Amino acid sequence: MQRNAVVAQSGGPSPVINASLQGVIEGCRDFPEHIGGVYAAWHGVEGILQEELMDMSAQPREEIRLLRTTPSAGAVGTCRYKLKEEDQQEDFERLIDVFEAHDVGYFFYIGGNDSMDTAHKVARLAAKRGVELAATGVPKTIDNDVGDPEFLLIDHTPGYGSAARYWAYLAQNANEENRGMAPSECVSVFQAMGRKAGFIPAAARLADPERRFPMQLYLAEAHHDLESLWENVNREVGRSGRCIVIVSEGFDVGTLGEAHDGFGHVEYGASRSTVAQVVINFLNDRGLAARGQTTGQVPGILQRSTSIFASRVDIQEAYDVARKAVEIGVREGGGWMATILREPGSAYGVRYDKAPLDAVANSARQLPPSWITEDGLDVTDDFIRYAAPLIGDGWPDIVVENGLQRFARLEVRFIERKLPSYTPVKYR
Amino acid sequence: MQRNAVVAQSGGPSPVINASLQGVIEGCRDFPEHIGGVYAAWHGVEGILQEELMDMSAQPREEIRLLRTTPSAGAVGTCRYKLKEEDQQEDFERLIDVFEAHDVGYFFYIGGNDSMDTAHKVARLAAKRGVELAATGVPKTIDNDVGDPEFLLIDHTPGYGSAARYWAYLAQNANEENRGMAPSECVSVFQAMGRKAGFIPAAARLADPERRFPMQLYLAEAHHDLESLWENVNREVGRSGRCIVIVSEGFDVGTLGEAHDGFGHVEYGASRSTVAQVVINFLNDRGLAARGQTTGQVPGILQRSTSIFASRVDIQEAYDVARKAVEIGVREGGGWMATILREPGSAYGVRYDKAPLDAVANSARQLPPSWITEDGLDVTDDFIRYAAPLIGDGWPDIVVENGLQRFARLEVRFIERKLPSYTPVKYR
Repeated sequence: MQRNAVVAQSGGPSPVINASLQGVIEGCRDFPEHIGGVYAAWHGVEGILQEELMDMSAQPREEIRLLRTTPSAGAVGTCRYKLKEEDQQEDFERLIDVFEAHDVGYFFYIGGNDSMDTAHKVARLAAKRGVELAATGVPKTIDNDVGDPEFLLIDHTPGYGSAARYWAYLAQNANEENRGMAPSECVSVFQAMGRKAGFIPAAARLADPERRFPMQLYLAEAHHDLESLWENVNREVGRSGRCIVIVSEGFDVGTLGEAHDGFGHVEYGASRSTVAQVVINFLNDRGLAARGQTTGQVPGILQRSTSIFASRVDIQEAYDVARKAVEIGVREGGGWMATILREPGSAYGVRYDKAPLDAVANSARQLPPSWITEDGLDVTDDFIRYAAPLIGDGWPDIVVENGLQRFARLEVRFIERKLPSYTPVKYR
Repeated sequence: MQRNAVVAQSGGPSPVINASLQGVIEGCRDFPEHIGGVYAAWHGVEGILQEELMDMSAQPREEIRLLRTTPSAGAVGTCRYKLKEEDQQEDFERLIDVFEAHDVGYFFYIGGNDSMDTAHKVARLAAKRGVELAATGVPKTIDNDVGDPEFLLIDHTPGYGSAARYWAYLAQNANEENRGMAPSECVSVFQAMGRKAGFIPAAARLADPERRFPMQLYLAEAHHDLESLWENVNREVGRSGRCIVIVSEGFDVGTLGEAHDGFGHVEYGASRSTVAQVVINFLNDRGLAARGQTTGQVPGILQRSTSIFASRVDIQEAYDVARKAVEIGVREGGGWMATILREPGSAYGVRYDKAPLDAVANSARQLPPSWITEDGLDVTDDFIRYAAPLIGDGWPDIVVENGLQRFARLEVRFIERKLPSYTPVKYR
């Protein structure tokens, strides 16, 4: 029996999130006896709640193909709207209402742990209401923090390989810059994403597996503080005249993370400053064993939206794992997330499998302690062996037309609404 | 008669500064009757003052070729050591001493206005001391602020095309990101380099010549302030739900640029915060006509050190103008900077010429007022016609080996010293 499918994205995007979207869309075409229409929700669950569904089969095939190299989530949107069972029961019910109204039998949710939790709850509620719905997760997060510490549920998440490639190449370029500017700008600070898990800043090490750069990593897991950071950086500039500092946004800057208002009152809320800025000011105030200054960079969303740093391996895996999710949804029903597992052996290879949504939903992975060096300033070769294959080899094929990048441009037109309009609980 | 040549870099680097270095080195090979050894000064004038000269003919040809796609100044270094005639006469004399000791008859100085000023003064002093020295400038600055307002001395400086390409592509990627994240992160602020001249932030417009993005440019020349910025951004988020804000580091944030210390005292010094951070806090404090938040990015040195954003046109011109400088130095003697002039007509083309060093030394170009739109939030199509050809078409050929970028790696070994050691005046 043919049912329709809804695909939605959630949370922060990645350079390859659209490759997963493409994987779902093209994967659904392989099951014409099971799946009819494929609808993408405009801005994730917000689009489902508001019945804003785009018919993907009405879009030109060429644009769907271009999703492969279109970064970030501009094509169909994502959102940070979080569903919590306790206070948003109405929202959950509405999701099922919309699915019922449009005869949706398959729900593919591209996201991280929170999204897997939502998918799991939606699946349970549907079952309770007697609605047949296969809710299937498609993993996505640049943070690589979904999964268990032993990497058994999932080896790595799509998006991470590209964020890692961004940081590996950034560190290479930064080393050229820092080496060249050292007399006057001797310390260069870079703030990396990942509040709790250090996989992203750790990837800077991939630039320099032989440890020739004067580079230090400050991971959220490593428990350094500003004092020890100053000591370490000062030792390095004393030795080599320069230092590259990769600092996690989750690095603990203590009370200096507090901002002061015009009256001298402490204003709590780290977002008024950045970790990088606190580190820069601290180093410049204390002074260093070199003549130069400390300067800083906060790439922010550039690490998750820059197309040309997408990893070819990551693009392919993001696509393949999404196709696998469709296969799981159709053949085995809901309740699973498609996963990527690494094949044993020295040559890099993966296979695609499934993990229960509820197992993934409650996972939160950090860098294994054994992958952090004793001085807490670096990662070990085990990390390099793990992460190096994920950044791939060579540049992705980003199409250039008239000097500009040619990205997919889908028409934002919604299928006919069948329900009364609805305001999501959080927006009331 | 064969004399030796010294080449040195100065000031902030660019993605193509090494292409000019390569141009000088290979250009010198064309004049074997005039030029013998080619020595690169390690970290610019600091290297000359300290007699740290690298023999470029002793480096593998393959590494010299790789300079073409090696970003920033890590190969031979640059510096911000400024020479002022008044108080550093000793330094100037030392430069001539070093040139004499190593029989240097040609000095090629890759830099911006300040460097042209230095080259000019060195040439004059050499003449006064009866030392034959052809001091020739090779233009370089991502800011594009060297030259006259009519673009007659130089049409654009090498480095600018690549910085422009960085911002054009950044804006394209940022639009995908901002469009996708709009419900929760609706305003995205990017801080661009160029304290006084707005050529760099203006290049974001190249991403969107048809003005479809909800993007606003805040140029140093446009005299907006935080109040009018808030009004403009708020109007845009009210209309389209989102806004991309490109703000110059030279944007005037007024007294909010001051930081407060723990005692509520105002600490002057803009480097304690960034213009982007002030804008972010201002918008988040005031609130916007949308549910989402303002977030920000400070790419910093990434805009001048990211190899893959180098413009193919810029690479070629940086190389060609450097070869032209060698030709000028040999055939016409010192006192000139090689320049790039645009050929008339609609098809893009340039020719290489020369301008007097002293004319360039005192120049400081800004965006022509007629290229800024009336509302002060955009640049006109005249700017697009000027800048679009400079970013070229297609990706540069950055060599990838084992998954990493393969940059030139020159051996840092100095030729035999002939003079007593010397401490530059500023370091005493």
